[in-house]
Amino acid sequence: MKVAIIMGSKSDLEVVSKAAEALEQFGIEAEMRVMSAHRTPNEVMSFVAKAEENGFEAVIAAAGKAAHLPGVIAAFTVLPVIGLPIKSSFMDGFDSLLSIVQMPSGIPVATVAVNGGDNAGILAAQILSVKYPEVRERLKAFREKMRQDVVAADASIQNLRK
Amino acid sequence: MKVAIIMGSKSDLEVVSKAAEALEQFGIEAEMRVMSAHRTPNEVMSFVAKAEENGFEAVIAAAGKAAHLPGVIAAFTVLPVIGLPIKSSFMDGFDSLLSIVQMPSGIPVATVAVNGGDNAGILAAQILSVKYPEVRERLKAFREKMRQDVVAADASIQNLRK
Amino acid sequence: MKVAIIMGSKSDLEVVSKAAEALEQFGIEAEMRVMSAHRTPNEVMSFVAKAEENGFEAVIAAAGKAAHLPGVIAAFTVLPVIGLPIKSSFMDGFDSLLSIVQMPSGIPVATVAVNGGDNAGILAAQILSVKYPEVRERLKAFREKMRQDVVAADASIQNLRK
Amino acid sequence: MKVAIIMGSKSDLEVVSKAAEALEQFGIEAEMRVMSAHRTPNEVMSFVAKAEENGFEAVIAAAGKAAHLPGVIAAFTVLPVIGLPIKSSFMDGFDSLLSIVQMPSGIPVATVAVNGGDNAGILAAQILSVKYPEVRERLKAFREKMRQDVVAADASIQNLRK
Amino acid sequence: MKVAIIMGSKSDLEVVSKAAEALEQFGIEAEMRVMSAHRTPNEVMSFVAKAEENGFEAVIAAAGKAAHLPGVIAAFTVLPVIGLPIKSSFMDGFDSLLSIVQMPSGIPVATVAVNGGDNAGILAAQILSVKYPEVRERLKAFREKMRQDVVAADASIQNLRK
Amino acid sequence: MKVAIIMGSKSDLEVVSKAAEALEQFGIEAEMRVMSAHRTPNEVMSFVAKAEENGFEAVIAAAGKAAHLPGVIAAFTVLPVIGLPIKSSFMDGFDSLLSIVQMPSGIPVATVAVNGGDNAGILAAQILSVKYPEVRERLKAFREKMRQDVVAADASIQNLRK
Amino acid sequence: MKVAIIMGSKSDLEVVSKAAEALEQFGIEAEMRVMSAHRTPNEVMSFVAKAEENGFEAVIAAAGKAAHLPGVIAAFTVLPVIGLPIKSSFMDGFDSLLSIVQMPSGIPVATVAVNGGDNAGILAAQILSVKYPEVRERLKAFREKMRQDVVAADASIQNLRK
Amino acid sequence: MKVAIIMGSKSDLEVVSKAAEALEQFGIEAEMRVMSAHRTPNEVMSFVAKAEENGFEAVIAAAGKAAHLPGVIAAFTVLPVIGLPIKSSFMDGFDSLLSIVQMPSGIPVATVAVNGGDNAGILAAQILSVKYPEVRERLKAFREKMRQDVVAADASIQNLRK
Repeated sequence: MKVAIIMGSKSDLEVVSKAAEALEQFGIEAEMRVMSAHRTPNEVMSFVAKAEENGFEAVIAAAGKAAHLPGVIAAFTVLPVIGLPIKSSFMDGFDSLLSIVQMPSGIPVATVAVNGGDNAGILAAQILSVKYPEVRERLKAFREKMRQDVVAADASIQNLRK
Repeated sequence: MKVAIIMGSKSDLEVVSKAAEALEQFGIEAEMRVMSAHRTPNEVMSFVAKAEENGFEAVIAAAGKAAHLPGVIAAFTVLPVIGLPIKSSFMDGFDSLLSIVQMPSGIPVATVAVNGGDNAGILAAQILSVKYPEVRERLKAFREKMRQDVVAADASIQNLRK
Repeated sequence: MKVAIIMGSKSDLEVVSKAAEALEQFGIEAEMRVMSAHRTPNEVMSFVAKAEENGFEAVIAAAGKAAHLPGVIAAFTVLPVIGLPIKSSFMDGFDSLLSIVQMPSGIPVATVAVNGGDNAGILAAQILSVKYPEVRERLKAFREKMRQDVVAADASIQNLRK
Repeated sequence: MKVAIIMGSKSDLEVVSKAAEALEQFGIEAEMRVMSAHRTPNEVMSFVAKAEENGFEAVIAAAGKAAHLPGVIAAFTVLPVIGLPIKSSFMDGFDSLLSIVQMPSGIPVATVAVNGGDNAGILAAQILSVKYPEVRERLKAFREKMRQDVVAADASIQNLRK
Repeated sequence: MKVAIIMGSKSDLEVVSKAAEALEQFGIEAEMRVMSAHRTPNEVMSFVAKAEENGFEAVIAAAGKAAHLPGVIAAFTVLPVIGLPIKSSFMDGFDSLLSIVQMPSGIPVATVAVNGGDNAGILAAQILSVKYPEVRERLKAFREKMRQDVVAADASIQNLRK
Repeated sequence: MKVAIIMGSKSDLEVVSKAAEALEQFGIEAEMRVMSAHRTPNEVMSFVAKAEENGFEAVIAAAGKAAHLPGVIAAFTVLPVIGLPIKSSFMDGFDSLLSIVQMPSGIPVATVAVNGGDNAGILAAQILSVKYPEVRERLKAFREKMRQDVVAADASIQNLRK
Repeated sequence: MKVAIIMGSKSDLEVVSKAAEALEQFGIEAEMRVMSAHRTPNEVMSFVAKAEENGFEAVIAAAGKAAHLPGVIAAFTVLPVIGLPIKSSFMDGFDSLLSIVQMPSGIPVATVAVNGGDNAGILAAQILSVKYPEVRERLKAFREKMRQDVVAADASIQNLRK
Repeated sequence: MKVAIIMGSKSDLEVVSKAAEALEQFGIEAEMRVMSAHRTPNEVMSFVAKAEENGFEAVIAAAGKAAHLPGVIAAFTVLPVIGLPIKSSFMDGFDSLLSIVQMPSGIPVATVAVNGGDNAGILAAQILSVKYPEVRERLKAFREKMRQDVVAADASIQNLRK
């Protein structure tokens, strides 16, 4: 089980790392790469064209501003592509969000929230869980863990007030 | 192979039908339902809680305005959930888009473009293709078909000018 | 007299506490809880379904980003629900605001300003004052106090200039 | 049981009438008035100052563009004030929405969706139901009616596909 | 020659002071007041109703968020009213701007840029210069001074590069 | 008494005519001109440079999209300049509004609502009323007329319901 | 002298044709093509990689929604690339605009207004005029023609009023 | 080879300097000037009117807020004009962007990203490369350098993970 995580710039690493951590927590290998739709388009194409035969089952692509990377990757593969809009210095990444989510008919990109690194990883795991039952079980355990965290926060606040 | 398509209101049917048509074109069964996160929340929960055991492998949820349906569904299942924002009468569905894509940490929704019914269906097919090789082949054929359509449009325009 | 204040995440506590303080200043009990529409949906439902019989007369719900909590609560009760959009990291909570205020026909949420914690509490008091005359009197005294504060600020500025 | 509905301009009548219809369906009297925060400010003040003693228990105020009417009304009464933003010719009423919902600390306006006339009426009924149990029962019946309508729409769509 | 400057909150003082300074630089008296459309509506009305007979020839009104103050003042006087939108914590005062500039037909507010305190003062001076030739001369001198400042900045940059 | 009304394009005539009508209703002469900041910049400058000596006491400038005309006019005169943003095909004239209202420090433009032709004319009359008492009296009569219109609309709606 | 005009979809033809007409009016050959960054990425690359040696001196690229075409073209050539955002069904092409203008450092796209087909052509002519003096002369004649058109419109309006 | 870089205010120098550095890296002389469309309009006109005969082959114009400088310059020359929107204190320069990019028909401005100083310089170099083959070669070398930087960042990240 292997997912590629491609970021348009090394400066996206902090947000993108959360996707890798999420994937690894579900037992899925994450390969992180820096490739730019505009500065290394040939490298992007070479990588993506061979992604399926190299054993990747989904791709996470993170980019900011006029964020073309997820769409360009989606143009070269039929693997599911998850788009992760990076918060830019313009309207908190509204440019990144629209450049990724508003894909034209025929080539979808599965978009998550701006800077939603962990959700990109979790979504990739949910997608792979269609095939791998063990990932699905880990997702259910993760849900239960989140539930307990909220319940604990609820208890702590009620105690605070007493 | 079966995908559930849930719309928040019967008025979303036209956009949503494109998702069903896309799925069927890839040989995937699509079950369309009308259920509202706000008006029939119990029906949503009952359906979603049994979606996995009833053989659904992904869910497409379409809603407009304060569009909570995709997120509410995602809260009750670890199946991949695709969010389809419906164009509303406020800023062309900007409310729908933000209500769906900006999900908090832990519960992602795979969001497509506003009114992107066909892309919601194609994305679901890409997700199922992780497991079903025959869907992947059909996706590749569909891509080639799209390519030829653009090439034909290109030719027609060049002739137009002569 | 009792109002429930539910926040989607413990990180909303600072803003939400202002609602509790406002309520207590009008002699209304405030019960603060952490519950998530996405991470603890069953806890939300259980709480809300019994809110009326447990003596709550209104609910304040605070949430950020794709803020579904107020709408989900409103789906499970006919008590008046006040939505408090929390300022998120995207366009100052524009996502939170639209996700809360743009509720579809049939299930309203009484929305206040982004991060308007005190106004959420005051609005709840105004709603309860429909039934409780003593709350109305306290609201009028509070208005007079606000008036005097502005008059004092006006005087201080005029002195400043002399 | 009586609610005042004030619109800033007669051209808002179509949207505002839905609020009156909603109220009457719950057995609440609705008095509709045309008054402008800018063109008849004295009339607004006179009406609002006497609203409580004239037996009104809540006020719905509808206005568009720089929509000051709900806030101005809220400044002259402690009755709960519901703000109904009217869709204007600028960004679908984004100006109306912000002018109403973003009230400063101390003077809340309970805001509903742009052009959400019916929801303004339903919210007023929910507020009055704090005092009047019969309104609460009617609200529950209305909810059940809405639920059945969605269930019927769901059935009709499933039949459509057969 | 006298202009009233009314701010909705003492926290607006820093921005508003620039308007007063601008006016004084053109030999126009500026009276700064704190008055709130929502918290001291009666004080606003009393002041504005007598503004003309008290010798004011224009009013500058500054407010933030759902900024009703300029419009409310304009409703009670036919003196020219200049609206100064204060930068709020929501989208840099986009709420303030729309609440001030989008006035309905019949009651205009002369709006300047968000936080444009100095421009509010200069505009008031331009308006008074219709009547007072000495103000017009001072405005022309001020323009020439601005011109020289830019020419000096231009020279300093060209030297920098040598 | 004379006001210049300059529009960037003949297509703005319908909106701009309302400004002329408003002015004439207050007994002020209105000279309408078509001049473009981009296509006839020299004509703009010649006209504006002589506006004061030609007896104009204020200028109304209407433009759409990247609406530079009001700011360019303001750069060549110290007469008060009223900016009238024309509704464009992009976000209902949001481009026009920002291009006009957000003037930098030193050169204000008195901005009215998008397509607010009548308000541009009324504001010009209010400005001239600083000097001409007869205009002020006409403005007060106009206000009273508006008040009566709203009162009549209020009466007509109350009758409607009986 | 030859400029390539590439549109992402045949539906952009109407807007794009204005660019071709503008170019031809300045004596520059325009080759219009339909190619999609997402549906025919290889065709885009092949064309662009040989654009320089095939005698093109600039490229105009038109696209809507998540409009990647101009940026993708700019990634494969150092010829100047003009981006023409097409008005989409979402916020009048705000998605198209941001996807084109907000290019990351290193790979600029010269962006014109949404649906600004003629300006895209004129800008290309201005760029080629750096090399071809005859194009510059034609641009100056075109400017004079535009000037005269505005002067004529001005005259017609002044006559209208007499 | 010479390009003029005009900024509306000395405070834009930091962003604008990147354009000058980019140009010089391609062997193109850059003359930086401070001139304001509003405060020194005559200086702008004098400079621009003689720009062509003074040997400039393109102009870069940087401005913020209601950013008229690029459009005003474009009105006085047929040289290609590059507009560089400066990030303002309002919505991250959304006002600057729209004021520059949304130019009306006939007078285009080649707009780059908000604060995209380096891209403004690179675009000017691309435009001059239409005439100067040596600039084109340097642009290709620059592209290759960028490519290598991304490849190195990619390698560094892969090592990081080992």
